[in-house]
This record gives sequence, C-alpha cells and structure tokens, in this order.
Amino acid sequence: MVSNLKRLLIGRPLKSTELGEQKLTKTKALAILSSDALSSVAYGPEQILIVLMTIGAVAFWYSIPIAIGVLILLMALILSYRQIIFAYPQGGGAYVVSKENLGIKPGLIAGGSLLVDYILTVAVSVSAGTDAITSAFPALHGYNVLIATLFVIILTILNLRGVTESASVLAYPVYLFVLALFILIGVGLYKIITGDVSPNLATPIGTPVAGLSLFILLKAFASGSSALTGVEAISNAIPNFKEPAPNNAAKTLFAMGTILALLFSGIVCLAYFYGISPREEVTVVSQIAEAIFGRNVIYFFIQGTTALILILAANTGYSAFPLLAVNLANDKFIPRMFTIRGDRLGYSNGIIILGLSSIILIFAFNGQTEHLIPLYAVGVFIPFTLSQTGMMVKWIRERPMGWMPKLAINSLGALISFVVTIVFFLTKFPQVWPVLVFLPIIIFFFYQIKNHYDSIGEQLRIAESIENTPIEGNIIIVPVAGITKVVENSLNYAKSLSPNQIIAVNVSFERDAEKKLEEKWKRWQPDVRLVTLHSHYRSIIQPLTKFIDTIENKAGEANYRVTVIIPQFILKKGWHNVLHNQSSILIRTILLHRKNVIITTVPYRLKK
Amino acid sequence: MVSNLKRLLIGRPLKSTELGEQKLTKTKALAILSSDALSSVAYGPEQILIVLMTIGAVAFWYSIPIAIGVLILLMALILSYRQIIFAYPQGGGAYVVSKENLGIKPGLIAGGSLLVDYILTVAVSVSAGTDAITSAFPALHGYNVLIATLFVIILTILNLRGVTESASVLAYPVYLFVLALFILIGVGLYKIITGDVSPNLATPIGTPVAGLSLFILLKAFASGSSALTGVEAISNAIPNFKEPAPNNAAKTLFAMGTILALLFSGIVCLAYFYGISPREEVTVVSQIAEAIFGRNVIYFFIQGTTALILILAANTGYSAFPLLAVNLANDKFIPRMFTIRGDRLGYSNGIIILGLSSIILIFAFNGQTEHLIPLYAVGVFIPFTLSQTGMMVKWIRERPMGWMPKLAINSLGALISFVVTIVFFLTKFPQVWPVLVFLPIIIFFFYQIKNHYDSIGEQLRIAESIENTPIEGNIIIVPVAGITKVVENSLNYAKSLSPNQIIAVNVSFERDAEKKLEEKWKRWQPDVRLVTLHSHYRSIIQPLTKFIDTIENKAGEANYRVTVIIPQFILKKGWHNVLHNQSSILIRTILLHRKNVIITTVPYRLKK
Repeated sequence: MVSNLKRLLIGRPLKSTELGEQKLTKTKALAILSSDALSSVAYGPEQILIVLMTIGAVAFWYSIPIAIGVLILLMALILSYRQIIFAYPQGGGAYVVSKENLGIKPGLIAGGSLLVDYILTVAVSVSAGTDAITSAFPALHGYNVLIATLFVIILTILNLRGVTESASVLAYPVYLFVLALFILIGVGLYKIITGDVSPNLATPIGTPVAGLSLFILLKAFASGSSALTGVEAISNAIPNFKEPAPNNAAKTLFAMGTILALLFSGIVCLAYFYGISPREEVTVVSQIAEAIFGRNVIYFFIQGTTALILILAANTGYSAFPLLAVNLANDKFIPRMFTIRGDRLGYSNGIIILGLSSIILIFAFNGQTEHLIPLYAVGVFIPFTLSQTGMMVKWIRERPMGWMPKLAINSLGALISFVVTIVFFLTKFPQVWPVLVFLPIIIFFFYQIKNHYDSIGEQLRIAESIENTPIEGNIIIVPVAGITKVVENSLNYAKSLSPNQIIAVNVSFERDAEKKLEEKWKRWQPDVRLVTLHSHYRSIIQPLTKFIDTIENKAGEANYRVTVIIPQFILKKGWHNVLHNQSSILIRTILLHRKNVIITTVPYRLKK
Repeated sequence: MVSNLKRLLIGRPLKSTELGEQKLTKTKALAILSSDALSSVAYGPEQILIVLMTIGAVAFWYSIPIAIGVLILLMALILSYRQIIFAYPQGGGAYVVSKENLGIKPGLIAGGSLLVDYILTVAVSVSAGTDAITSAFPALHGYNVLIATLFVIILTILNLRGVTESASVLAYPVYLFVLALFILIGVGLYKIITGDVSPNLATPIGTPVAGLSLFILLKAFASGSSALTGVEAISNAIPNFKEPAPNNAAKTLFAMGTILALLFSGIVCLAYFYGISPREEVTVVSQIAEAIFGRNVIYFFIQGTTALILILAANTGYSAFPLLAVNLANDKFIPRMFTIRGDRLGYSNGIIILGLSSIILIFAFNGQTEHLIPLYAVGVFIPFTLSQTGMMVKWIRERPMGWMPKLAINSLGALISFVVTIVFFLTKFPQVWPVLVFLPIIIFFFYQIKNHYDSIGEQLRIAESIENTPIEGNIIIVPVAGITKVVENSLNYAKSLSPNQIIAVNVSFERDAEKKLEEKWKRWQPDVRLVTLHSHYRSIIQPLTKFIDTIENKAGEANYRVTVIIPQFILKKGWHNVLHNQSSILIRTILLHRKNVIITTVPYRLKK
C-alpha cells in the first residue's frame, strides 16, 4: 500500500540507463534554474529605495547609479560564472572552485554556507509567496504555516518525480512572470516617452542631497545586490543539462543574465520616473502596476505571476542542494546517503532532507522567515567572493591564452562581492552574526564526518601481508523457553551446523518449572546438553550474558566462535505482535552490541 | 543512565524470594485499598440531596430513609464480599466469581467493565482532587491537566516501587481524613444533642411531600449508592495480604465497612439537622464544616485531607487493576505481558498501562472527567450484580453447612445491585449508554486474543507421532559490497560452517565496477563462487530476493536450508549510525519476513 502511494506520487521507478532522458533542454533549464534570480527583481529595487528613504524622497535619483552598480556586479558575476562553467564542466559551483584553487577550508566555507543557504532559499521564498497569497485572500490569513508547508511538500514531490517533469510543470509560471513584467515595463516606458507621465514626479538626476554618506550608498547597493542571489544556480547544475552540457549551460546563463538585467533596470527606471516611494503595505511593483494600468486584469495578472514565482524560486534550492550535497558526500564531508539516486534518478535523500529542513524552519519562525533574508544574502555572497577569488588564483597559476581579461573579470567580481559581504556585516550585523557561529560549527562537523569515514576505510582495508587464521569450530547456544516446535526447529538447524557443540540454555524463574523441564528434556533430546540458569531477579538477559561470557572465554582460547540461535515468530497479522513479548528481539539487540557473538535468527512462521 | 534513573525512581530490583516481605499488614491494607470507598463519602450524601432538591428542600428528610437503604446495601455488599474472600482466597473479585459460577461470558462482562472502571477511577479521582486544589489556589487554575497528570505519574512511580512502600506513604493521608471526619461528626452531633443547633433548620421527618415519585426516590438511592464504589477492592487484592490472607482481608473489609457506614450516616445526619442545601460552588461537607467550626484551622484541615483523599482514591485502581489483569492474562484474554512481575515484584506492565490510559483520559476530557462518574458507577454495579448472582448460584449448587443465610445475604445484595444498575440506565441513559457499546467491543477483543493464543499453542505443540526429518545441509549466501575486512570476516565464518556451499552475491549498479570486482575476487577468494546481480533500478533488495528464490527452490528439493550471512557494523558512537546506510538492517528485516531463510548477523566491531 505504501509502495502504491509512492508510485502514485512520484511515478514508476526509472532504469539507470534512462538517466539521459531526464536531462534538461535550455528552455526548461532556464525556467527551473533561474526562478530564484528572476523572482528577486520583485523585491531587489524596493530594497534600494527603502535604504534611500532614510534620507528622504529627494535621494531616490541615486537608485539609478546604484542600479548601474548592481548591473555591473551582475555582468561580472555572469561572465565569471560563464568562465567557471567551461573550466568545471562537471558542475562547478563555489564549493568545487574554491576547494580546487584555494584549498579545502575555503571550499568548505563556500560549500557549508551554500548548503544552509539553499534551505533558507526554500523557506524564505515559499513564505514570501504564501504571504502574497494570503494578502490577496485574507480569509486564509491564520493558515500561513500550513499553506507554506503544503507548498514545500508539493515542490518536494515534484522534484522527487524528477527534474524534467518538474520543469514541465514549473516552466509556465516562470515564463508568464517574465511576460507580465515585460508588458509592464514596455507599456510604462511607452507612457514616459509619449509624455503621458508628469516629469515632475521624480527628483532630477544630479540634485544634491544633504546627509547622504558613502555608508548609506553602500548599504543601498548591498541591499540591491540581494536581487542577485540565485545567479550561481546554473553553474552548480551543469550535470542536469543535455549534451553539450557546458555550452547549453553557458547559453542559459547568458539568457538569464540578460532577462534579469532588463527586468531589474526596467523596474528601477519605472520606480524613478513614476516617483514611487516604498510603502509598508503595498510593494513597489504593485504600485508601478497600479500607476500604469489601474486595478484591471493586467494588474492582477502581474500580481498573480509575481506571487507564483516567489514560491517557485524555492525550486532553485531543490535543483542545487542535492548536487552540492553529492559533491560534499563524494568528498566524505557529509553522509554517503546523499550520493544515492532514488527511483526517479534524482538524488532523493538530498531532496527530502531539503524539504524537511525548510519545513522545520518555517515552523520554527512561524512562517515569518523575512528575518532570515539578510542571513541568506550573506550566505550567498561569501561563496561568490570565494569562488571568484578561486578563479583569480586559477588564471594566475595556469595562465592560459587570454588570461588577462579573464583575470580582470573575476577580480572585479571578487572585489564587488567582497565589498557587498563586508557592507552586509557592517550594516546588518544584528541579523547576520549567526553566520559567524554556525559556519564554524558546520565545518567542524564536516571534518568529524570525514575523519570517521577515513578511519572506517582504514579499518576495513585488507592488509595483504597478514595471514588470516581460519576459525577452528563453532559453539552454538540455543536459548529455550520450553519444549515446543519452535525449539525443535532451532535445534534441527543447530544440529545441521555443528552436531556436537550445541548447548541449550533455559533461564528460569521458578524451581519447580526448572525440574520439570529438565526431566522432560532428558527424554526428548538426550543428545543435547541443557543448562538451566536460575534468575533471582526475573531478568533473562543478565544470566544469559554471564553464561555467554564464560563460554566465550573458553571458545576464544581455541579460536572457536560462539553463535547464539534465536527463534523469531513471524506472525500472520501485525497487531498480534502486542500479544507476544518478542523478548527475542531485545535479546538479539543486546547480545549483538555487548557480546562478541554471532546471532542467527531462525524464523518460525505461524500459519494462522 | 536510563537504568540509574530507574533505580532512583523505583529502587533496586528485588529477588523473587523477597515477595513475602512485600505483603501488606491490615493497617496498611486498609489505607491503600479503602481510599476509594472512603473518599466517596465526600460526594455520596451530596448526590442524594441534589436529586431530592428537584422536588424542594421539604423533601430533604427523605435523605434519612434513603441513607438507611444505602447502609443496608453496604452491609449486604460487605457480608457478601466477606463470603467471597473465604470462598476465593486466591483473590476473588467479580471476574473470578462470575466466571466460575455463571460461565465465561458473565465473567468477561464483569472483568471487562472492572478493567475499564479502574482506569476511570484513576482519571476521575485524580481530576476531582486536582479540582479541589485549584479551587483553593486559583493561581493554578489553567494547569489542571498538567497537575492531574503529575499526580498520576507520582502514583504510578509509587506503585512501581511496590505496594508496601506506597502504603507507607499513602497511609497517613487516609487516616488523617478519617480522623478529620470523625472530629467533624463528633462535634456536630454534640452540638445537636446539646441543643446548640436550631431545630427549625430541618423539615421534620414524615412531613408529606407533594410530587415525590418512586422514580425520584430510586434515582436518589442510586446516586447515593455511588458512594459504595471501591468496596470490592479488598476482595480482589487478597494475594497482597500477609498470611493468613483471607482472615486479614475479611477483618480489613469489616473495618472499612464500619468506618464507611459511620462516616456516611454521620454526614447525612449532619446535613439534615443543619439544614444544608447542595450548592454549585461549595460542597456539602464544606458547608457542614463551616456551620460547625466557622472558617478556622479545623475547617481547613477537613478540606485539605478531603482533597488529598480524592487523589489517593486513585490508588485503589492501582492495587486492583494489575491483579485483575493477571487473572485475565492467565486465562489468555489479554496479552501475556500483564503476568510478568517487574523489578520490584509488582505487576509493572499493568501499573504502567493503567497510568498511561488514565493520562490519556485526562487529556481527552481536558481534566473535566466528572462527566464520566455515572459511567464509572454503572461499571461498578454491573460486576457487583454479577458476582453476587454468582455467589447465589454457588450456594444453591454446593449447599454447604448454613447455606440458607448466606444465600439470603447474597440474594439481597444481588437484588439491590441489580435495581441500582437498572435505575442508572433508566435515569442517566445519556451518560451511561457507552457501556452498551464498549463492553461488547472489549469482550470481542478478549475472545480474539484468546483464540490467537489457543491457535499458537496448537501450532507449537510437538506431536509425538510425527517423525522429524533432519536437515541435509546448508547453503550459505553472503552478500558482498566489495573486498573489505567485513567481507573477509563473514566469509571466514561461512567457511567454518559449510566450506563447500558458499555463494557470495554482489548487487551492482555499474558495469565497470562489476568487472573490476570480479577480477579482484578471482585472485582473492578463488574457492568462493561470486555471483554478480546487475540492478537496473538501483535496488539491492529486489535482485537479492529473486536470487534467493531460485536458490531456495533448489535447496528445498534436497531438504537443504538457506542461510544468509549479513555483516553488521557495530559503531563506537551512536551518532555515527547516520553516516552508514545500514542497508543490512533493512535487508535482514525484509528477508526474514518475506523469504524462508535463516539470517545470521555477524557483528563487525569498529575499534575507533
């Protein structure tokens, strides 16, 4: 039944050879991997205006030069990641690039912060999308956590079904969102050009602003840069692309960069020319849309697709997290289970862990995950900085043809990313300090896990030189509770293995029962020695382990092994298990962990 | 650590031979077994007045004849249970008496309703006591459920420690309560006799009352009879008494009956002479105490011990439930685990199940278990009726010396109990109907369990006539994942059992890895056959079970057994388990339940 439900939700299992068919075309990849980056234009420009408003509306014209700065950073990042795609066609991403060029520690810093960041991506974007929906339908207000959890579950199932299938479902909303914003920007600019909009709305560019400091400008720039989170997703996911993967990935990255640049600058321009101020209850995009269209169908189309893409932005996390986890697991820094492909060839364990972790975050913050946004942005810019510094080192070391312009691009990217990171720490320390606590803890665990795996590998390796002495024989202990078919069955098996070394052991609580059993036993199994252990404290385990100790000591001297044969009832109906004490299971577990014995379970199948 | 905590809470384990020392003296038995019965005088008289008040205060004088009726019933019950004690010195109780004299079904009706009733006893009395406490300390009001749960946990632990120890702790409050009520009644009567109380307060006895029907009188009588719940506890618990148990139990029963009769009639008289009307917010006992003493120290002493005894009344459930469960479990109507004595020689499973069930009830009814009181009273009077009818049958059948008066006593008891039961159904059907639903369900499960145990016993019995054919030999399957020490260890063990019938099986997902392993294997273990199973769907279980099927078919023909040797890592630290897939555990469970194979677990102990 469980298995049928699984089939229904995620579909039939796929053969390993069907892996190729699960790869992404460029159109689908763009939809599935860029939703995070594209969705951030819904709030990035607003972030700039919110910072500038602390000075006054007169400072709003600075959003234009700041946006240009963000675009330069975007360009540097796109060009830089394009270079990473070709340099690391197996799926680069900050972890691999930093590890190879800067060393393991920087790699783990990048990997660790991205790993946590993808969980934050899912929690934050799903919560944001849910907020948008419950704002539209106030009746749903009290149910934010529930709705967000439901969305996470749906995304998890879609991703367990496999990337191509989820891409098909998720592509429409992404392209509809892009279409909606292009209509908005197109019509808006047309109205400005045709003079439909009063030019008095905006402060002219170049107006001197009192009280504006470099600090404020940097803060506005850093806030605007949060629109660039998600840019790295494509370079992590190259293995998911159709062949030739690097070329397809590079083209998709370029397309995403172009769309992102157009949308971002379009929104910033419209906000400036229409004289929009950020307001608590209405988003900037919503204000622009209302100013251009009024509250008609197109307005609601724009709002609807925006809400949808905020939720879908979470999908970037689902594409990137499992692949990053595979890289870390292959290097033994996280549990090996992340490298196993599930029924549908996706890395199911990564997908499930991501879903569960983000649901926990949503519950922990009661759906109010916007407090986590600065943390999330820092978690992106640290690996940005590291990976681009890594690329700088790579160019300087390898000096391939035309390395100078490549170095320049990465250096510019590294510098701006570094500045943004520092500005985040300076301006939003109360929100971002946890990074400084959690990153070291995560990296500590990475090393612990690595050490464990290395030590296990060492212990399991077979040293060719050491002679391996064969086992001389086996002593078989059969715990018996009475004279039944179960005991007969176990004894028959024991006799077939080692007819002369069988000891039946009875742990008894009552003297009368002891004697009766011993007498009956002599008649029934005269060849098998029966040892009776009287238990004063009515415990079965204690006398049994003591007895095994003495047997083990003798056996060890002669290089004999001790095997304990434990019968286990296999009952027809599950609920029948409460009717049997199944002390066999307890005995098995305790002996296996505490004593150096081999445990053989002989099933006894009941027919009724 | 868990074991240390257990020691701290319930004390060191006791030897089976120490059982005698755990038996109860009469003084302790009276305290521990009569708290339920005695506590009911705190609400029994009030129940009578509440019914009479529906007619008017003029009807209150009827409480005197009704109380006489209750006293007659009490006397009949005490005398009847005295006879049961001597007739069933191994612990009679309604279940045993009904089963032996009326048949299994009446026995199960009595046993089933008592079993549920003891759970209700615990829930209801602890909730009532908690109410009394939170009424005194209004700051605790919102915490009723929590406080009640805490009391249940404390009672559970005390009872797990053992009956004598809990008796020592619980005896004081019971005797203090009796003392408090004797002071109340003594001083109250003294004041009446000396004329300190105005004789005008009460309607004279014999005043005609308009509108009073037999139905109302019976209802008042039935309500007053709820003060008699708990009378049967002593006859269930005879095995807990010091020798000579029946004599001691009979004396304790007589003492309890006398105290109960004195307290009950005392309270009824005081209520009548002081002209007390039942009020919503103040209990009748509290009103009497206030009228006699005013709100001084003695008043608070009476109120405090009353609250305490309400909680301790739950202890009667703890004494009786486990013993009844042992009787039912010995007859195989409930799981066998109820017959096992714990570390402290109490029947711990019964105690724990009782505690858990009543906590669940307290949570389910949010601490407002007073709705359950009628249900609880019916659940007592059904077994009362059955056990006394059983005794009637016994006397008629056996006709011992002087059976006629004995028959008369039991017949009177049976008749009155039956009338009370019927009156409960007639007057409180909306509250007591669940009995008619749950009792049949419980009895259905009793029979299901009994059938299961009987069928198992049948299947396990060894038929002497059938020849048992020895096993011819063993085929050993060793699943291997690579060439490691773990595999070497398993193979060595397999070779010591059956050197020529070993098949190593490798389930592989990749063709390259397959070939490499096969080549290495040939050099490493040339004598052991390696079978490679390619898994298209990346499942280990499926190809393995298929392979086992084919081997099993061959083995079955030759009367060979198939053993699968599964290595299991025993890791040094618990958390390391997440780092290993431990697919061995999954494989073991599935093979054991689905295939007819024997599973041998060879532990591989990691040193670091």
